[in-house]
Amino acid sequence: MSSKPESWAYLNRVIEGPSRPLQELLSAGRDADDIARGVRTRAKWLGELGRQTQARYNHDQSAADLEAAAAVGARLISPDDQEWPGAELDQAFGFAATGRSEHLRSYQADAVPPHALWAKGADLTGLVAQSVAVVGTRAVTRYGVEATRQIVAGLASHQWTVVSGGAFGIDTAAHEAALAAGGNTVAVAACGIDRVYPARNAALLERIAGQGCVLSEYPPGTTPQRHRFLTRNRLVAALTAGTVIVEAAWRSGALNTLSWAEGLGRVAMAVPGPITGAGSLGCHERIRSGRAQLVTGADEIRALLGAVGALDVTQQYELAFAATPAQSLSRNELRIFDACGSAAVSAEDIAAGAGLPLPLVVHLLMDLHRRALIGREGSTWFRVGEHRD
Amino acid sequence: MSSKPESWAYLNRVIEGPSRPLQELLSAGRDADDIARGVRTRAKWLGELGRQTQARYNHDQSAADLEAAAAVGARLISPDDQEWPGAELDQAFGFAATGRSEHLRSYQADAVPPHALWAKGADLTGLVAQSVAVVGTRAVTRYGVEATRQIVAGLASHQWTVVSGGAFGIDTAAHEAALAAGGNTVAVAACGIDRVYPARNAALLERIAGQGCVLSEYPPGTTPQRHRFLTRNRLVAALTAGTVIVEAAWRSGALNTLSWAEGLGRVAMAVPGPITGAGSLGCHERIRSGRAQLVTGADEIRALLGAVGALDVTQQYELAFAATPAQSLSRNELRIFDACGSAAVSAEDIAAGAGLPLPLVVHLLMDLHRRALIGREGSTWFRVGEHRD
Repeated sequence: MSSKPESWAYLNRVIEGPSRPLQELLSAGRDADDIARGVRTRAKWLGELGRQTQARYNHDQSAADLEAAAAVGARLISPDDQEWPGAELDQAFGFAATGRSEHLRSYQADAVPPHALWAKGADLTGLVAQSVAVVGTRAVTRYGVEATRQIVAGLASHQWTVVSGGAFGIDTAAHEAALAAGGNTVAVAACGIDRVYPARNAALLERIAGQGCVLSEYPPGTTPQRHRFLTRNRLVAALTAGTVIVEAAWRSGALNTLSWAEGLGRVAMAVPGPITGAGSLGCHERIRSGRAQLVTGADEIRALLGAVGALDVTQQYELAFAATPAQSLSRNELRIFDACGSAAVSAEDIAAGAGLPLPLVVHLLMDLHRRALIGREGSTWFRVGEHRD
Repeated sequence: MSSKPESWAYLNRVIEGPSRPLQELLSAGRDADDIARGVRTRAKWLGELGRQTQARYNHDQSAADLEAAAAVGARLISPDDQEWPGAELDQAFGFAATGRSEHLRSYQADAVPPHALWAKGADLTGLVAQSVAVVGTRAVTRYGVEATRQIVAGLASHQWTVVSGGAFGIDTAAHEAALAAGGNTVAVAACGIDRVYPARNAALLERIAGQGCVLSEYPPGTTPQRHRFLTRNRLVAALTAGTVIVEAAWRSGALNTLSWAEGLGRVAMAVPGPITGAGSLGCHERIRSGRAQLVTGADEIRALLGAVGALDVTQQYELAFAATPAQSLSRNELRIFDACGSAAVSAEDIAAGAGLPLPLVVHLLMDLHRRALIGREGSTWFRVGEHRD
């Protein structure tokens, strides 16, 4: 049974995400309606959440928030919705919960999923299914912009969605390059979905919403604040298979996203740059210390993510020692392979079966076809060796 | 007992280095006079060396070669000479002989020391005592030159000798930057010491010989040929504590020097660069594959070499787990520390005792003084804690 959107909107307003106590109640099986009722009535079983909502429990703006979002063409996505990126979030925060990461430390408290997302743009499921974060400094150099463009163009041409933070500098270069290549891109904001930050990126954020999606875990009207950038970074890392940092000086905030990627079991990658400037210092430091893998182009990024996707460590080992070609398929390839049968079917049917966006499905089908794992007959596809048996 | 220089010159002429059969006879205790006699008389005990010298054994040009060298202000350095870099060569080729390196493969036959060196310039012992190789592509970019300059200036200011191959591009930039900083530099040539290659670097090579040293393991008149560049590279790596590759495209010859550094147990380092050009592809590949450490400046290079110096693996571990500050000293620091006593002595005496050049000794004394390991009284120095006990 789904809870009412109003319950999620209410909880999103009175509890600033990420909230570990709320996540614990949800994990314990309580639904949003139930918890919202508990918060409103100051129920004893709320525990820590009761204390956290003491000052705000009667600020019920759920109807107004849903209206404010609708007014700017945005919608609320709750964990009860089809569109909720549950697989990605479960995996990332499931990894964090194992305590295997040394790199969460002071952020451990925040290592829980958002409890709601506000979105403006295309359906999220298809966008994050094959996505990578590309982030970096605001104080960008010409080199950083050029390197970003080169990498993002290569990712976009292979149907990878580029997720970033919508900030000036590398983020802007990443979004723009994805749009220019006709690719998908997602901006995760650190403020309410009805706000525009940074203001000078208003036109860019509109284009992102038009072609991809703008996301926020904060209720409408929320202002961008320092701590929200840090929790936003966690979401960028959680939604994607890996994070690439293009340019980052010694203490760049973009390094925080990379740390989140590590902490959430994602692939952490850094692009090298000239040593004659300070622009890539942070990237070099992460490579040197072994906390990020050196990448110089989209092909290398795809190679690192392709066979890894959003698989856990055991699955990665299984892939590495795969005995048959089919066992070496990435997560998305496997979904497509499984959706194909011995009888030839259309790409549309495969996309529906695999729950993946059509352009990505066609792209991967062609790749699997090249690798002789999937056969083709006109506009239909079938598993090689199983056709007409 | 030392052999006659003429014997070494004769062997150097009739046996092109590196020669494993010759090294085996030397290791077995035969001296150069003895072996030269054996070659001249086609002695049975020469074994493989007899076959190798069959065609050339009567080409005795030793007097002419020594004269040709003297005519250009050069001298022959043999393993019998004080100036022979025996410690460096023994260690490097001793490491290679253990077979621990995976990276010698097709070069294993060449992994033996030279049997003679022709030198033009300053005394070799002081020059190589604290030295690092800086090499790279001939097809240099402006970035590569600037990065080389920056790194070499920092190395020179800390009394590190910069060794390179005298070629165009990065090599030239490295030599020039060392000279400009008033530092020491050594060029290892792939042709005879009386030859100038590349011809356009004639003035540079003259300046190197004037301020540092030009070296060759080939007899006068030898022309530069492809295989000699490869064996020259081995010498560059062997004489130094580590090799830094600044700019190298995918199949750059400079990568060969880096492979030698690995194979000889030296520290292999690579400088990253822009991914928007192909100039640093080879560097990035080596870093990515873990075959070279990423370095972005002289301080990092010194840190990597400082505590490692020319120590073997066991000694490196001992340093890493050193219980006292004195145990964490580098090889050269330890030589200076040992040359100091409880009574205060002059830097000149310490330099004589340690067998290291005075500028390097003064530099390291001041550093040890800062670290409170060495005390100072006027122009004399003593071990802290042991003075006047």
